[in-house]
Amino acid sequence: MRVTVNVRRRPDISDPQGTTVARALRDLGFEVGKVRIDKEITLEVDGDDAADVEAKVADMCSQLLANPVMDDFEIHVG
Amino acid sequence: MRVTVNVRRRPDISDPQGTTVARALRDLGFEVGKVRIDKEITLEVDGDDAADVEAKVADMCSQLLANPVMDDFEIHVG
Repeated sequence: MRVTVNVRRRPDISDPQGTTVARALRDLGFEVGKVRIDKEITLEVDGDDAADVEAKVADMCSQLLANPVMDDFEIHVG
Repeated sequence: MRVTVNVRRRPDISDPQGTTVARALRDLGFEVGKVRIDKEITLEVDGDDAADVEAKVADMCSQLLANPVMDDFEIHVG
């Protein structure tokens, strides 16, 4: 099954990459407010049961894909 | 207006970060196939007209946010 995981830094934690990109865009003449850069992870996971696969991927997030202190994650199966 | 841009490496171009994460997940005992890691960029852009804002953001992608040789991008306004 194809699973998409969005890993996003928590809103109260600064995102230096986003801040740098916002500044670069302004230097190019674009008017932008806040910019955030987050991750979209796409995985192929074995399994037929969506709830089962989601639980497996949540486990992957806690162990490796997301930083439990700084990130939130959202899992979309299928 | 809030705009989300998905910047994804073209499928025929290798994604070393994804390959490394796939290997790490397998080392942890997870059975996964291909893993890809792409970017989700969220921006606040001035403007009332969605088509206008989308054109502006497409311009930002060509100039800075995406690598025209290696990446595809998808813009979602609002």
